[in-house]
Amino acid sequence: MTLTYSTICKGCWQQKHMPIPLRGLLSAPFRAVGIKPSRMNPNLCTICELMFERTMKARTVTIDATVLFADLRAYTQLSQTKTPAEMAGFLDEFYDRCANAIWRHDGLLNKTIGDAVMAIFNFPICQADHARQAVLAAREMQREFAARRDEFGVGIGIHCGQVSFGEFGHSHRDITAIGTVVNTAARTQSAAEAGQILVTEDVCRSVGAELANVEAREYRLKGFDDPIRLYAA
Amino acid sequence: MTLTYSTICKGCWQQKHMPIPLRGLLSAPFRAVGIKPSRMNPNLCTICELMFERTMKARTVTIDATVLFADLRAYTQLSQTKTPAEMAGFLDEFYDRCANAIWRHDGLLNKTIGDAVMAIFNFPICQADHARQAVLAAREMQREFAARRDEFGVGIGIHCGQVSFGEFGHSHRDITAIGTVVNTAARTQSAAEAGQILVTEDVCRSVGAELANVEAREYRLKGFDDPIRLYAA
Repeated sequence: MTLTYSTICKGCWQQKHMPIPLRGLLSAPFRAVGIKPSRMNPNLCTICELMFERTMKARTVTIDATVLFADLRAYTQLSQTKTPAEMAGFLDEFYDRCANAIWRHDGLLNKTIGDAVMAIFNFPICQADHARQAVLAAREMQREFAARRDEFGVGIGIHCGQVSFGEFGHSHRDITAIGTVVNTAARTQSAAEAGQILVTEDVCRSVGAELANVEAREYRLKGFDDPIRLYAA
Repeated sequence: MTLTYSTICKGCWQQKHMPIPLRGLLSAPFRAVGIKPSRMNPNLCTICELMFERTMKARTVTIDATVLFADLRAYTQLSQTKTPAEMAGFLDEFYDRCANAIWRHDGLLNKTIGDAVMAIFNFPICQADHARQAVLAAREMQREFAARRDEFGVGIGIHCGQVSFGEFGHSHRDITAIGTVVNTAARTQSAAEAGQILVTEDVCRSVGAELANVEAREYRLKGFDDPIRLYAA
């Protein structure tokens, strides 16, 4: 599947009704002052990425969002036997495949962290069905990695709910989401096996029919007192 | 301790002998085209951060470096009871304190990942004693957090050796370091208790006398077959 590139920034349009040109002749003066497609999503601009506080008039906003973590399994073991160039190639491919699946579903590739990727759905591009879009993106990733059939497997975890989204840190500014939802999504991912997508009950409820009959079991996640029920999407 | 701000980019100067103005009148034309202090270290410029391949004529280079991970402990539990605004405040402060300690020792605050921070020492600013600088930065962090005496504790892990440093991913470009050293540093951090700095044998050897008589014990780290000896710095 290919990614459709937008002519204007989808985030600035949805959040502020400002048409910021990303591509074509009209984008030239914007690019000259550093406004260009964001690394986090090529259909968003660098205003969305770097000027959150100025455009949103707040350092953080509380929003409903879906958070997805994907992690390349066996990476630590493999990095003990493969050459640095081989490992770099694996990572390049992992990031690129994840990026494309996330962007096709209008998500934000917020961070790459060594062998893991963190994505946020529903901001700055709003999606009524953000939990479902995240699950679809996760399934695309797993299909592509399954087709590749190599030593690598990817574990994915998804959770949704209220997060604080905005700018954190003053000296090293960073746009990201924080809160229990993010932590739970990360822990859910760590429970997933290679090739598996685990989602929380909230995700199941939000997605509805498509996840009605999936398998579930209880997991004990690090940092959480009570066991948590996760569903194999 | 305060941070000394450099007039020119230390990275461009050391790597390419190019004097890129970061501050003062001469920096104005550079800022106009988007060249300004990097978020990863205010004594480096955005060329160091975003144009690695163009300036280094390679996508990655293999270098000797020290990698430090610091993690805010009890964050997951706390995020279940504190308000999002309180958590945002804690994170802001954690990032800022870590950033300042890292920058005072010429390190690169490469990533903030929720409740964790990843720093790299010895590139783009070269330091003969990079392992020692990382340990000094870690001790400054622990001293500052100890002085604060709240519910938070920070666990820090440090390892050094050869890493691949450069740009990873094509669609979502990111400058970072990868390799066993990075994974080992992350795992070392996860073994550290709140208030503790754990370093590997390589770090001890590199730092020398200052770490000669520190306590050591064997740890079993996730993803590693053999137990590993870690030292409380």
